This record gives sequence, C-alpha cells and structure tokens, in this order.
Amino acid sequence: MKPLPPEALAAWRAALGDEQVVVDPPALQRAGTATFATQAGVAALLRPASTAQVQACLRVATAHGVPVHPVSRGRNWGLGSRVPTVDGAVLLDLGRMAHILAFDEDLACITVEPGVTFRQVHDFLRERGSNLFCAVIGGAAEASLIGNALERGDGVGPLRQRAEHAAAMEVVLADGQRIETGLGRWLGALATPVHRAGLGPGLDGLFAQSSLGVVTRMSFWLTPRPAFLQVFTLDMANDSALAGALDALRRLGQQGALGEAGFTFWNHIKFIARQRRYPWDAPNAAAALRPEALGVPPWQGSGAHYAASRALGQATRELVLAALQPWAKVAVFDTDTHGPELAASLFMGVPSNLNLASTYWRKRGPVPGPPDSPDPDPDRDGCGVLFICPVLPLQGAPAVRALAQVEALIRHHGLEPNLGMHIDAHRTLLVYIALMYDREAPGEDARALACHDAVLELLITLGHYPFRLALPAHGRLPAPADDTVAVMSALKAALDPARVLSPGRYEFGPVQNSPQDDTHPTQAHD
Amino acid sequence: MKPLPPEALAAWRAALGDEQVVVDPPALQRAGTATFATQAGVAALLRPASTAQVQACLRVATAHGVPVHPVSRGRNWGLGSRVPTVDGAVLLDLGRMAHILAFDEDLACITVEPGVTFRQVHDFLRERGSNLFCAVIGGAAEASLIGNALERGDGVGPLRQRAEHAAAMEVVLADGQRIETGLGRWLGALATPVHRAGLGPGLDGLFAQSSLGVVTRMSFWLTPRPAFLQVFTLDMANDSALAGALDALRRLGQQGALGEAGFTFWNHIKFIARQRRYPWDAPNAAAALRPEALGVPPWQGSGAHYAASRALGQATRELVLAALQPWAKVAVFDTDTHGPELAASLFMGVPSNLNLASTYWRKRGPVPGPPDSPDPDPDRDGCGVLFICPVLPLQGAPAVRALAQVEALIRHHGLEPNLGMHIDAHRTLLVYIALMYDREAPGEDARALACHDAVLELLITLGHYPFRLALPAHGRLPAPADDTVAVMSALKAALDPARVLSPGRYEFGPVQNSPQDDTHPTQAHD
Repeated sequence: MKPLPPEALAAWRAALGDEQVVVDPPALQRAGTATFATQAGVAALLRPASTAQVQACLRVATAHGVPVHPVSRGRNWGLGSRVPTVDGAVLLDLGRMAHILAFDEDLACITVEPGVTFRQVHDFLRERGSNLFCAVIGGAAEASLIGNALERGDGVGPLRQRAEHAAAMEVVLADGQRIETGLGRWLGALATPVHRAGLGPGLDGLFAQSSLGVVTRMSFWLTPRPAFLQVFTLDMANDSALAGALDALRRLGQQGALGEAGFTFWNHIKFIARQRRYPWDAPNAAAALRPEALGVPPWQGSGAHYAASRALGQATRELVLAALQPWAKVAVFDTDTHGPELAASLFMGVPSNLNLASTYWRKRGPVPGPPDSPDPDPDRDGCGVLFICPVLPLQGAPAVRALAQVEALIRHHGLEPNLGMHIDAHRTLLVYIALMYDREAPGEDARALACHDAVLELLITLGHYPFRLALPAHGRLPAPADDTVAVMSALKAALDPARVLSPGRYEFGPVQNSPQDDTHPTQAHD
Repeated sequence: MKPLPPEALAAWRAALGDEQVVVDPPALQRAGTATFATQAGVAALLRPASTAQVQACLRVATAHGVPVHPVSRGRNWGLGSRVPTVDGAVLLDLGRMAHILAFDEDLACITVEPGVTFRQVHDFLRERGSNLFCAVIGGAAEASLIGNALERGDGVGPLRQRAEHAAAMEVVLADGQRIETGLGRWLGALATPVHRAGLGPGLDGLFAQSSLGVVTRMSFWLTPRPAFLQVFTLDMANDSALAGALDALRRLGQQGALGEAGFTFWNHIKFIARQRRYPWDAPNAAAALRPEALGVPPWQGSGAHYAASRALGQATRELVLAALQPWAKVAVFDTDTHGPELAASLFMGVPSNLNLASTYWRKRGPVPGPPDSPDPDPDRDGCGVLFICPVLPLQGAPAVRALAQVEALIRHHGLEPNLGMHIDAHRTLLVYIALMYDREAPGEDARALACHDAVLELLITLGHYPFRLALPAHGRLPAPADDTVAVMSALKAALDPARVLSPGRYEFGPVQNSPQDDTHPTQAHD
C-alpha cells in the first residue's frame, strides 16, 4: 500500500485532532475486512465531528490526491462493509456525526447526521412519547439511516423505500464545497424537509449509489402509529403458487389496496438460516435442507398492513384473503389479538439484529455473534456473505422461472440458495440473493466469488439487471449501449476533478474482466 | 434579434428537410407570445421527428453557439408558454415526436415521446379496451405527458405527482450525446420502465425544471380503474375552517387513509372564474365578487378516493367524514349512485379543457376561447395569466395566514386573488396563485408583473419558496446560502459547455434586479 503523504496526515491531524486520525494497524485491518475477499487496504481512518471537518478532510484529500471512502456506520455487510474501492484510501468514518438535528411531529419528519442509527431514532421517538415511528431495516439496528437511503436499501413497513421518502441533503463535494439539495439552499425555506423536489434540477439522485459527494445531513419521513395493524403470513407450496401470489399482489397493489407497506418473500433456506446453522452433522445435507425435511414450505411471505381504522383493516383483509386464497395458506395477526406483541415488532419500527443470525449459517462451533451478542459483527467473525441484487418485473411466472435457474446455479457451486425479495412500487421484485459461507474454510472465498460472478452473468443474460452492487460486481456489467460512460465521467470530473471519492464506485466503464478471466483481482488470494 | 448563422440554418435544413425549419414571421411571432409580457424573440422553429434528428439539431446549435429552447407541446401557460429564456433562440418543437412506443397492461406503464398528449393516451387506452387510466391534468388536454412531468406539474387522481411515477428517460445532451436514465442504458434490461432508480447515481432529477438536456422518451405508470370511486367535495365557511380541514387531512393522509389521490382546494375566485367572467357591469365589482354575493363558500375542496372494493371505500368515507365534520360541509359522490358520470370524469383520466375558461376571466366581449373552442389558446387570445407557485408546509393555521396576506396583496394591486392548492405527500401544500388579466388592456402587463414580483417577495420573506417558476421569476430569488451556484455552473458546463440549452432557466445566480428596480426587463415595454 502506497504510504500517505505526510503533509496530508499532518493537515488532517490539524483539522480533526490527533486522536481522530487513526493509523493503528489492527484498527485499519478491521476496517479493511469485509464479508468476502477484498484487496483494498485502508491507509487511515478520519473521524470528523462536523460538516466543517468533513470539508477540511476532503480539501486535504483533493489537494494531495488521496482517495477517500466515506462510511456512515459501515454496516454494508454482504456488499462491501467498509472496504474502499481502491487500495490505500482513507476511510472517512462519519460515525461521530450522530446528532438528531430537527424533528417535527406534525410534518412527521426527522433530520439527522450520517452517524444516526435506527436504534437511536427509535429511542428518540419513544423517549419523546411521539406517535410516530421510523420503518427500520431487516439488518443491523446500528445501521445508519443515511447510509441505508444512499445505498437505496429498503426497510420494513411504511415509507420503506427510504430514498423516496427523504429530502434535503447537505452534501460536501470533493473540493470542500457544500451544497444543500431541495429548498435548503435558501436560508429560512420552511418546506425544506418535506418538499423532496425542491426547485430546479434535482440533485439528490446524484448522491445515491454514488462517488460524487459526501452526504452530511438528510431529512426522513416518519409514519404515525396505525390504529390497526395486521400482518399477513403466506405459505406457498411450490413455485407456481409463488407466481400466482405475486401476480395477485401486483393487481391488488396497483389498485392501491395494500397501502405503503410491501410484501416480502423468503425461500426456505433464508427462513431456516435465521434459526439454525447448516446441518454439518447430517449424512446428506442437501436432503436435510429440503423443505419437507425442514418442515417448512418452499416459499413464505409476509406483509404488514397499516390501517387508520379497524374497518379499513378488515376491508383490506377481505381483499387480500380472496386474492391469495388460490395460491397460499394465509394467516393473519392483528393488533386486536396480538396488540402488545405486534406493537413491539420490527413492523412497528423496533430495530432488531435477529436477521443477522443468518450470516453465521456456514460457521461451525460457537461464535461471538448473534443471538449472543448485542452488536454482531460478521466482518470480525469471518462470516462469508455476498449479495447479488437483481430487480425483476413483477410478473409471477417469468420471475419464478428465473429464480429457479438462480437456485440451481448456486447449488451447482456448492452453496445454498438464500433468496429474499420485496415487492416494490407494485411493479417490480427487488431480489436479495445471499451467498452465505465460512470465510475461514479454505477455498470458500473463491468459491463464493465464482458463484457470484456466474449468477450475476446468468441474470444479466436473462435481462435482470442489479439494483445494487457488491464490490466485486463493479466493473462486471456489460458496457452501456448509450453515452452513459462519457456523461458519468463528465459529471465525476465536474464534481470530483481529482477523482478522490471512492473512485470506480458505481461507474459504468467497460467490463474489466470476464467471469472466467484468471486475472479476476479478488480471486488472486485463494 | 441577432440573425441566425446561415450555416446553422443550412445544416438544420439538411438534417430535417426544409419544411421542418420554420422561419415564417407570423409563426415565429405566435411562438414568441406568452400569457404575459416577454422580450425574447424566436429565431426559428425546428421540428425534428426522431431522437437522431434531435441529436443533429443540437450538434448544429452547439457548433454555432445558437441558443435552443425545447418545448414538447408548448402548453406551459401562465409560466412561459413557448417563449425562450433568451432572445434569438430557436425553438426545438418536439410535437412531431408523438409516438406511443410501448405499453404493458400487467406492469401498468406506457412509454411515450414528448409530443404525446393526455388526450392521445386516453384515446389509446380506450381503444385497446385497457383497464388502465392515466391521471390527467386540470389544464390542456393537448398538453404533453413528458412536459408535465419535466416541469414537475401535477395532475388529478392516482400517481398525480407524475415525475415521481415515471422512469427511464432518454435524454439528448447539447453536444448530441444520448443517454438513458435508470436501467435503460443496458440493452435488454427488462425492468427499465418500472424501476425508477436504476443503478448508480440517479440522473432523472437533473432533467426536470432544467436546461441540461432534452428528454425524448419516458415511461409513465398507469392505474387500474377502481372498483369503487368516490369524490368528496368540501365547503369551508372561512379561513379557520380551511386550516382545520387541512390539518385533518394531513393526519389522515399520513396514516395512509387517503391512498394516492390528493385533495385540492380552491378559493371562491378560482371557482367562479371557471364559470363566468369578471363582473364588468357590476357597479361595485369587489362587492359582487364576495363569496356571499356569488353564493359560493370562500373555500371549496375536492378529493377523489379510489378503492379496490366498496367496503374499502365505505371504511375510508367514515374516516374522512368524521375528520372533516368539524370543519367542512362534505358531500360525497360515488360510482354506486353516479356510475357513468363519475366514470367519464377528470378523476378517471378523461382530459378536459374546461378549466382553461378561467384564463379568459378578465377578457371582455366574445372570445374564440373555451367553452367554444376545441383547442383554446390563451396565448393567441391575449389572455393574461401569470402563476406564482409556492410550496408551504402542511400546517393549517400558518398556511392560511400566509394565503390571506397574499390575497390582500393581490387585491392591493387591483387584481383578483385566484388561488388553488393541492396537498402533496401529506406534508406540503403546493399552491397555485394565478394572476388573471387582459393583456390587451393598456398597462395590465406591467400591473400583473409588479403584482407577481411583490407576491413572490412576500412569500419568500415568509419562508415560502416556489416549487416552480414563471419566466419572470427567474433571477428574482435570493442568492443561495451554499455553493449551489458554483456547483450548478459546473454541471451546466459539464453537460452543455456551449450553454446553448435554455440558458438561465432554473439557474440560481445572484438576484438580477430588486422588485423595485426600474430596469426590470419585462417592465420596459409598458
């Protein structure tokens, strides 16, 4: 790794204080460890406490041409954790910027810094006795709201597509310039946190899945606690039942019958991986993992409906049950009968680390992770997690055919297909394909990566492109058929002329290596 | 007006054919006429028929440094019609690109060129026997869907915030480069029309209220016809009743009880201006225009609720009636009792020019406009229309106080306050303040402009910034408090280095003139 220019280090120390510029090797080692094989080493951690300090850090980086990789809370497990795009970058760790800056109960919005976590917002709202809640994610309770939105991650419950229900970014550019998106650029504009579009060209999109700026503030919309909450769980006996259920929910959703909250589907592997480990002791693991052997259906679904009255909830329930009856065994849990339980659930904005148990799926023996730990750390624990995230049109039969091909391909690579998906906008399926393995088992990093590449290639051949990229997927997409590459380069040059911000991240240059290419950089270690 | 370079004219003629390069003075005069005083003359009309021809037109413009102002259908009445931002620009008239390129009944989306109108989409869907409809606008039936979305205009009914329910732009940049936003940049990506965000930095926002590119294709989402439709109409007796109703609807809406469709409010002037003209013959016009004299309430509201079942509609109705009962006299019309009528209404995607009657409010005597004309033309008919469009936080009491100040100021300028507003995202009020006058009456252009400037200034003082700008509002906003101006300039330079696309449009440089400044350019004529 190229050493950092001493002048840059000195300037960062002057700006942040010595103790906020971390060069301690074990800390750097931890920061450069993801849930899959990576090569890029971290040269230093910078821990600014304010927007002004972020500006100072970036000015120094641009002046000295040092790459910078910003992370909010660093829980991007399965997609890259905190690992930078290039070797020798400094991590801009925004975790100290953890202030809730504004909150409005009437307008149902909250303005936060990047270090603010789901747990923090939940506690803040509960302490104030607010009637509002914030849809959380299935992942880490200690994840950042801003990080989740910028990666276009989604959540559980109303306004779960967070980037679509947020406004008013403050962004620091690579040269230290500071802009506000939406109306925030004008002092005193009252609608800033609640008017997404602002006035004139919309810049928010530029900073999602991006390397064009560092977001230091953002406002998120919240939801009042519903008068009546019901949770549907669906068991589907086979792929064609899944296809039928997807089509039925598409039709209902487009009619506006389902409200904001979406339906989620898990295959049996994903379901079981949250509860137990790989059956190491079974004489035939594949047989032991069949749905019949596990006693679970091949596909399960769940969806929460938030109603402003019991009558509205009941009328919705009738529609949902009638539409799904041909396809699924449906159970309903509601606040009438499960009041306190439901009110304390993930569906009501209570963050939980329970889903993280699945990242330990292929580990053997005792581990320090969940459910034993309050802050599980798959990076530290050698959990292998690598996500592939395609978006499919919401049409049942073609979607399940594609997923069956994916499952077969993953099995062919000796891993278990761990598939989850959300219905989005009543028109697409956002699919999360998780390759779960044990990084400490020899050869497994390479196996997972080869599987990742093959699945990504299959999906692209089928026309199913990703909506989110793990680090190894960067540079593995076909060349765009238009002038995107030139235009994205021009935008990068305009906003980050020294190319210091996460260079290569979500840029769409020509394919670097074919999946079969021996020079695949992340295979070199194995 | 500076003459066009003959080489540019020759190149455009070679690209489009002679007859598609219009330099006929009456046609240019018409194209340069808005519903308020403007100075910029149109040097030529270019009428491309394809994306390739748009690319050719822009390459020539960039090569010769000729400003280009793109218009889709040119119905931007009240905000600038077809008039360019600078004198001597050529209009890029996209009206011949009027093809519906793709349609999917399952995914409920349609892909169109910029010349495609609301009437055309309505007819297309009806002819195919589709179960889908497209939310229309209150304005011209012959307006462009793409134009409406790019201006972030809204509509009536589900998915009415069109820019939020659209995807996959094709954009031509000033130098002729062509990009697709979202997944469309990859050939064969199946989710392109239904996955808004795409992958990587989102570029769509850049091209709304913008001068950064010319959008030549876009996909819009449609809605299935509801099983049960009900329309609420609300009469509010005074400002505090309006405030109460707004707060009640905010609470209901945030709970998800109202679905996609929003509520609209009109003051008595806006209501009456659609039905009759200014009372020229009344001995005391001001008295004749009081709500009591007109026999209408000071404020009326309406909102349509689209339900997937009658039971869902009824449950919603109970909530709406209970919430509004303290504030408004509410009537409900539904498809059970008004089936065919409601099914043929604006709420069901049937375009209508009826609202345009109000643009003739201050005209005297017979006019060729509505309801007599199938294609009314306020530009041609000397109708004075100038919009001011602030966005306010959705909080009843402060909002109505601000609007009362606006009404008083407009009356002080000798015009009638014509106010409409939509609830957006359950968190804001998008207000349309229309200054309606007779351009043929001496001094009225100047009066309206002075009123526009004063109202805009008042609103900004109150913290209520615009969400959309009429031509004269450009350059009249305070300087941004951040680095927006430098960053927007860098983006403009990256995407339109010769600054040929609508220069100055939605750029936020320093204030050019104070409202009292004698050099106000559009006052010079009066």
